[in-house]
Amino acid sequence: MKILVALGGNAILQHKEKGTAEEQLSNVRRACVHLVEIIKDGHQVVITHGNGPQVGDILLKDELAKDTLPPMPLDVCGAESQGMIGYMIQQSMRDELRGRGIHTQVVTILTETLVDPSDPAFSKPTKPIGPFYTAMEATQIRGEKGWHMVNDSGRGYRRAVPSPTPRSFVQGDAIRKLVELNVIVVAAGGGGIPVTLPNGSKGVEAVIDKDLGAAVLANVVDAEILLILTDVEKVFLDYGKLNQRPLDRMTVQECRKFLDEGEFPSGSMGPKIESAVRFLESGGSRALITSLEKAREAIAGRAGTTIVP
Amino acid sequence: MKILVALGGNAILQHKEKGTAEEQLSNVRRACVHLVEIIKDGHQVVITHGNGPQVGDILLKDELAKDTLPPMPLDVCGAESQGMIGYMIQQSMRDELRGRGIHTQVVTILTETLVDPSDPAFSKPTKPIGPFYTAMEATQIRGEKGWHMVNDSGRGYRRAVPSPTPRSFVQGDAIRKLVELNVIVVAAGGGGIPVTLPNGSKGVEAVIDKDLGAAVLANVVDAEILLILTDVEKVFLDYGKLNQRPLDRMTVQECRKFLDEGEFPSGSMGPKIESAVRFLESGGSRALITSLEKAREAIAGRAGTTIVP
Repeated sequence: MKILVALGGNAILQHKEKGTAEEQLSNVRRACVHLVEIIKDGHQVVITHGNGPQVGDILLKDELAKDTLPPMPLDVCGAESQGMIGYMIQQSMRDELRGRGIHTQVVTILTETLVDPSDPAFSKPTKPIGPFYTAMEATQIRGEKGWHMVNDSGRGYRRAVPSPTPRSFVQGDAIRKLVELNVIVVAAGGGGIPVTLPNGSKGVEAVIDKDLGAAVLANVVDAEILLILTDVEKVFLDYGKLNQRPLDRMTVQECRKFLDEGEFPSGSMGPKIESAVRFLESGGSRALITSLEKAREAIAGRAGTTIVP
Repeated sequence: MKILVALGGNAILQHKEKGTAEEQLSNVRRACVHLVEIIKDGHQVVITHGNGPQVGDILLKDELAKDTLPPMPLDVCGAESQGMIGYMIQQSMRDELRGRGIHTQVVTILTETLVDPSDPAFSKPTKPIGPFYTAMEATQIRGEKGWHMVNDSGRGYRRAVPSPTPRSFVQGDAIRKLVELNVIVVAAGGGGIPVTLPNGSKGVEAVIDKDLGAAVLANVVDAEILLILTDVEKVFLDYGKLNQRPLDRMTVQECRKFLDEGEFPSGSMGPKIESAVRFLESGGSRALITSLEKAREAIAGRAGTTIVP
């Protein structure tokens, strides 16, 4: 089966880590071992990934170097992160595949994502990114750069940017063609670089939710399964409470109901469930939410949370 | 005709500039106006580009931020620069094309370049990269990191890395396929990220000469013309001297003779001439060295320096 795999940015760079290239490569390598098992089972995979921690580091470096070199806008930082992470994934995948006698080509496509300039997200920037500032710095930055600054969970002030809905990918045709040629494609990293409709001629300082991007990509490549990898083996109801219950299987209708009831927070499980719903409503047959370690079993129907139309 | 266009990294970020995204985008846009004229003339183009100034800035940001965040190795910085520059080129090309009613897809392929670990370049690191250091700092860095440090033209000390010969591209098949599908491909940026033969499983801290990479790419995509863009309209003999003479046309044999006589310095025109020779000896029919402004005329045989087998 054709499977769209969405790797979390945290799977590549964990918060407790320093963020060296060695750490990230070793995490990527670990993920690739599991993905190659899936390929060995006879499946075709297309890969996308988050980029939150990596773009965070690029933004922080820009901030620390700002007296010497001009900082890059967020769309350019997103492009840099796609290069960095795509490189680590394609090299590690190739090496793991070769170790098992598979010589499929792995190719990263630098992906731009079309968003609607009239998306309501643009009037309400909600997604905190980059370094933390004091209240005084935040006020100054707001005045100088016009950035929208928010207090991020009491940890300090950060820039907040819009998170518009991904509509399609500018490079969608090329991605589809390569997948048809049996190339393992890495695409839409970090949800892709947002560019505005109608013609995608301008990058915008916004972030795309990588899980929503994954749903669009799954439809572009006509995947049968959308596999969203996260830290937990299953989706839970009442997560973190004494009465938390794991979910083996949900329908789109149940997902909608639980989303309406606020079961899944917007910062974590919410976008994953929305992504599954979006994929299934556009013709997908099965969405899976599980951990890297349980991915193979989940595909076989023996682990994770399965969501069906 | 199918033309491989090699854009200089300096064409995107000039030394006198600060390096803002706006400057770079505006330079890229100016280049794309010329490239689209060539496409309007009925030619197919494949694009590669340098990345010297951009990787320099990424390395300098890493250095300035090193007390807070771990610097990335050179191969990862190269991957970042491919993302950054590829994004600017694909967006600008697309927009310029659309303005003229052409809707060809423009796609950047993150490219790894196979090099031979026994390449003699590895025992003789010659290419200075990144920030400048004092003699004392250079000694300390040499001890701490084992870097090869050189005095760069009396301007200070810099790290020197090997510049091995590019053999082929790991993503070559995918690049060729997309070109066959009439996609405008941006590939092998900065010569590509060097990875070692036999299986390309490890990135190396080295730089590939982007012009030599361009010659390999021209053969990969079966280009008829290799168009190397630089700051001057023609190649000169005795360049910079009172008796300097422009060259309209050279054969491979003449190129070899002039190279042997030391006419073309290794830091500037040398690799361009070598690249032309390599392309023509591998089956190419015509190499052109000229400026962006004269590119169209050069293709028509009315400007630049033409090199033939």
